Amino acid sequence: MLRVGICGGSGYAGAELLRILSAHPEVRITTVTSEKSAGKKVTDLFPHLRYGSMPAYEPLDREKLLTKADLFFMALPHAASQVAVDYFVSHGKKVIDLSADYRLRDAKTYEEWYKVPHLFPATLKKAVYGLPELYRKKIAKASLIANPGCYPTGALIGLFPAIRHKLVRADSLVIDSKSGASGAGRQSEVSFSYCEVNEGFKAYSIVSHRHTPEIEQELSSAAGKAVKVNFTPHLVPLDRGILTTIYGRLAKINDLKSVYEVYKAAYGKEPFTTVLEIGKFPNVKNVRGTNFCEIGLAVNERTRTLIVVTAIDNLVKGAAGQAVHNMNIMMGFGETTALDAFALFP
Amino acid sequence: MLRVGICGGSGYAGAELLRILSAHPEVRITTVTSEKSAGKKVTDLFPHLRYGSMPAYEPLDREKLLTKADLFFMALPHAASQVAVDYFVSHGKKVIDLSADYRLRDAKTYEEWYKVPHLFPATLKKAVYGLPELYRKKIAKASLIANPGCYPTGALIGLFPAIRHKLVRADSLVIDSKSGASGAGRQSEVSFSYCEVNEGFKAYSIVSHRHTPEIEQELSSAAGKAVKVNFTPHLVPLDRGILTTIYGRLAKINDLKSVYEVYKAAYGKEPFTTVLEIGKFPNVKNVRGTNFCEIGLAVNERTRTLIVVTAIDNLVKGAAGQAVHNMNIMMGFGETTALDAFALFP
Amino acid sequence: MLRVGICGGSGYAGAELLRILSAHPEVRITTVTSEKSAGKKVTDLFPHLRYGSMPAYEPLDREKLLTKADLFFMALPHAASQVAVDYFVSHGKKVIDLSADYRLRDAKTYEEWYKVPHLFPATLKKAVYGLPELYRKKIAKASLIANPGCYPTGALIGLFPAIRHKLVRADSLVIDSKSGASGAGRQSEVSFSYCEVNEGFKAYSIVSHRHTPEIEQELSSAAGKAVKVNFTPHLVPLDRGILTTIYGRLAKINDLKSVYEVYKAAYGKEPFTTVLEIGKFPNVKNVRGTNFCEIGLAVNERTRTLIVVTAIDNLVKGAAGQAVHNMNIMMGFGETTALDAFALFP
Amino acid sequence: MLRVGICGGSGYAGAELLRILSAHPEVRITTVTSEKSAGKKVTDLFPHLRYGSMPAYEPLDREKLLTKADLFFMALPHAASQVAVDYFVSHGKKVIDLSADYRLRDAKTYEEWYKVPHLFPATLKKAVYGLPELYRKKIAKASLIANPGCYPTGALIGLFPAIRHKLVRADSLVIDSKSGASGAGRQSEVSFSYCEVNEGFKAYSIVSHRHTPEIEQELSSAAGKAVKVNFTPHLVPLDRGILTTIYGRLAKINDLKSVYEVYKAAYGKEPFTTVLEIGKFPNVKNVRGTNFCEIGLAVNERTRTLIVVTAIDNLVKGAAGQAVHNMNIMMGFGETTALDAFALFP
Repeated sequence: MLRVGICGGSGYAGAELLRILSAHPEVRITTVTSEKSAGKKVTDLFPHLRYGSMPAYEPLDREKLLTKADLFFMALPHAASQVAVDYFVSHGKKVIDLSADYRLRDAKTYEEWYKVPHLFPATLKKAVYGLPELYRKKIAKASLIANPGCYPTGALIGLFPAIRHKLVRADSLVIDSKSGASGAGRQSEVSFSYCEVNEGFKAYSIVSHRHTPEIEQELSSAAGKAVKVNFTPHLVPLDRGILTTIYGRLAKINDLKSVYEVYKAAYGKEPFTTVLEIGKFPNVKNVRGTNFCEIGLAVNERTRTLIVVTAIDNLVKGAAGQAVHNMNIMMGFGETTALDAFALFP
Repeated sequence: MLRVGICGGSGYAGAELLRILSAHPEVRITTVTSEKSAGKKVTDLFPHLRYGSMPAYEPLDREKLLTKADLFFMALPHAASQVAVDYFVSHGKKVIDLSADYRLRDAKTYEEWYKVPHLFPATLKKAVYGLPELYRKKIAKASLIANPGCYPTGALIGLFPAIRHKLVRADSLVIDSKSGASGAGRQSEVSFSYCEVNEGFKAYSIVSHRHTPEIEQELSSAAGKAVKVNFTPHLVPLDRGILTTIYGRLAKINDLKSVYEVYKAAYGKEPFTTVLEIGKFPNVKNVRGTNFCEIGLAVNERTRTLIVVTAIDNLVKGAAGQAVHNMNIMMGFGETTALDAFALFP
Repeated sequence: MLRVGICGGSGYAGAELLRILSAHPEVRITTVTSEKSAGKKVTDLFPHLRYGSMPAYEPLDREKLLTKADLFFMALPHAASQVAVDYFVSHGKKVIDLSADYRLRDAKTYEEWYKVPHLFPATLKKAVYGLPELYRKKIAKASLIANPGCYPTGALIGLFPAIRHKLVRADSLVIDSKSGASGAGRQSEVSFSYCEVNEGFKAYSIVSHRHTPEIEQELSSAAGKAVKVNFTPHLVPLDRGILTTIYGRLAKINDLKSVYEVYKAAYGKEPFTTVLEIGKFPNVKNVRGTNFCEIGLAVNERTRTLIVVTAIDNLVKGAAGQAVHNMNIMMGFGETTALDAFALFP
Repeated sequence: MLRVGICGGSGYAGAELLRILSAHPEVRITTVTSEKSAGKKVTDLFPHLRYGSMPAYEPLDREKLLTKADLFFMALPHAASQVAVDYFVSHGKKVIDLSADYRLRDAKTYEEWYKVPHLFPATLKKAVYGLPELYRKKIAKASLIANPGCYPTGALIGLFPAIRHKLVRADSLVIDSKSGASGAGRQSEVSFSYCEVNEGFKAYSIVSHRHTPEIEQELSSAAGKAVKVNFTPHLVPLDRGILTTIYGRLAKINDLKSVYEVYKAAYGKEPFTTVLEIGKFPNVKNVRGTNFCEIGLAVNERTRTLIVVTAIDNLVKGAAGQAVHNMNIMMGFGETTALDAFALFP
């Protein structure tokens, strides 16, 4: 049994880690931290997590935690994660970091977008970007995983085959994303209160969302040259799910069938990423509560444009589920272990 | 491996049976019927059910089905279920009927409320009302289970200890229930379209809902005398969940602690029914997607009234989950097999 | 033109007052107060209120306000309202208080439920409970209106004819209410965040809600003897609306037609309260954004129980709309002025 | 008093016409048609429309209707509208057609997208596209208005200044729209039932939506050359509202301030279309129930892209409200008559 610890277990991503890991036959959750809720039971915060032997919250005492777990999931806010991740990695632990702290390989870009310096460039170098569809082999050997952001997960899976095979022009990309409210975390701001979100729909952080450099880093890497994107997130009045609609000018081919073959070849063997048959498009409701990513493809021949639509559950494939998937790969467990439940529908 | 068949697999209850049973290690789904969708794949109707080896829909050909399965879940409309249930039971199969056809022990009461005669009184006599909290032992030996209605499940679990121990006067009961929209099934009526249900709230079938005689039958049985109730269902703009608020005039004791002890004694060992500690009350969101029933208790000492609040997921504990629980009991499987996942929250 | 001031204009009730009054041809809004938002424009908080000449928020400086308006709507939290109301009334202003401070005629009951003493018993004596269906004549002559709570409005309109005509036994009343989330005000608590309320349903403040004594005061007054009730509020995942389902044991008659006649006689001439024809029941969606109260009636002859269902918009008939209605009556304006728009449906 | 008739009054657009027109001081609704609901009262279908003197539904008997009204609003399905519109126009009536039948100036394009021929090319020539922001003067003199589609309204208002002033390249346009469920009308299809739409989000009619040629026609006209667009609609789980996010490659200037000035100049005097100050973006919740269109602007200097976000209420500015606005212009009424209420928030 692998002993796993969860640092930052009082938010939605932490709760999802608890939900998923408590059903994982190969692991035992040995510690869950929360500064604010230290001493409380997990069910005080999340009555739906009824796991008999769930440990109570404790403060993040790094030295003490070292003895308790072999692998740590870090669900702390960005910046707060840096130090603890470095500490655990330095002491030989495996770490899967759900924060943004180790996702951007260039420390300057990190500082530019997150407004804090990166203090651990050496550890940053060890981090592997934890998108299994792109980096499965590196993940298997990694000690530190930078678990992708929720928006980048849907955007990158949607764009990766097109960019790598140069199907679309890299200077024309529009990524229009729509996320459920849980993407903002467990919120006490008026703007996330029920009456403000319900029956509303809006764009936010236009041109300035922090997931932009993460998307651009991975697309640039796939394209072999600098790629810049237009990325606009929107807030949808629902709990879970990100639908991403992607537009790119087709560079060579201009027919759907050819595009479809490229995507099928890229993802045909993936356990969680599915290319829907031509004419079908995803709905976030069909992946709710799951680690699946569904992809729908269309070609507008009149404008020579590729349209890719992807759907994920932001808390699962966009956070906790992908983290567990990464752990499964790192540890040699079956990749779908604890992640094979169907969506809850309706 | 138990071979199970699902008759009527194109509605929400059928889809939940498919979702739950496909993760059950002791069973294999060998047939799913639907007249209208015969020939289609399950994923044509329910893209979220990705089970590789899921059979396609076929018509309900009773003779053919006999050879395919050992136990049948019947998720047909009432009246339509009568004949098929009788046929399978007569041919030695185990049957769990999710329709109302075998719930009312008195055929006349059935005819009065459902406006169709009951054609199989002999088979009706064999039926056991499948509420494990009340009839676990009979269920274990039964060949035909009448799986309880969604509203009766929440109402009966909430009232049973109080009635059996005569804590409340049997002539004063108010059962005010609120259900999510999936309780009405997969609907094509305008009144269940999104824009009519969303941002609305209403009572319906006041004084006339067909679950009334079912509730009264079981309460009368527990009380040892005829009990009549005021039962009012309401439609809540959400997918899943029934919250039932029950009021009864206290007959003897008038303090919460004593009531709590009675309920704890009744349900302390139940795997799915939980009495929340004093001062806590259930929320349907905390049981979503699960087979749990949560109970909150209050006493209004000023009016000498017991208030019981219960929460279930109408499609799971109120339908498919309870059906699988009944199967587990009938077959000697672990009671919680395939039913132990936590709720999806948020 | 009547000059009106709004004290406490940064919450939902204040915003509704601004919305409704800005379309009122007989009044001019001359001041809106908010301590926290003083100096800000109303549209900074509520972009939907585009009234060209809307004043900016200012602090509640009582002396300064005296010169600015002839009538004040007070939408302050309870306790905070006491002093300002007394001050304005003492200085000859007309006041409509949307807080609970002047609703309970007995200062001791107020202190018992609100945990603060009432400092102005003399002013309290002048207050008229502003439910036009009950107290229209007193309202017309009042200088201080205690605008009813949202739950009491739906409960009292539903019960008043039955109690006054002794149709039901006063010791058997169950009032089961369900409110949209705006009833809690503009909220920054996690428990009112979108992801916690959405897809949830729960009861709260069971046996202890502060609207209980207000309901009991008015029912006792109508009954001519002390009445105690079971009142349970619930939180519905929608923005606006309260549906109240009321149960009372019938004392004499036991048929719906007779009950219907009593209600028709009571409310037939009311501009905002409508008794739906027999067999029809209200939906909060049909009164959204309006000052209407719709009533549906049923009799359960088997249990000799009257069931009354009422629907209101908690922010309009349950707060700001009823306040404007009271003003219209006090000032001799047409009763429906600025309150005659139809509901927004869907 | 202008006598107006509504042909097709049993859908949501018809109901909105009834809601808005019943508060219009210059008109009297003299007839409302519905084949299916002929003989029924309007309140039988829409209990929220309590207008005392609202006529009952009658069948669309063209000759009879001629004598009843001076101006007709046509809210019939496309194709069904063609004949009746031609008849009324030929007989000297003013007509505002909410269907798509007279929007496309080229009958062949109409036939291509709507799969029915256009039988009245002469009448088609008379039609004026009823977007007041573009065609106010023509509308004032028109006898036949083709009221714009809901999506084109939000898209065209958002793009018009940029296209006319050649701020963006006409070959690079992405129009990503998100609509509430009422856009599909009063629906009895399972795919629009509550449980299928709620907690879901999806794109639909990708590359093939019928509003595409309407958008292209007006953009081409503004650009002075053929413009083709990528238009993708999405279904949002809410009742009302369309948010449109538009992307265009900047051709000359690359700064927000300059773009803002162009938009301010274009719309500064419009009564319903508002350019939000720099840094602010619209939310459909702020325009719910109103005829307003709000515009937010951003420039991505890194990619030289203009991003325009517009919000409307699809049933008001996207249908019935814009129709009444057109009538106000045609008849010389005050433009905002019956359209000046604020949004219902929350």
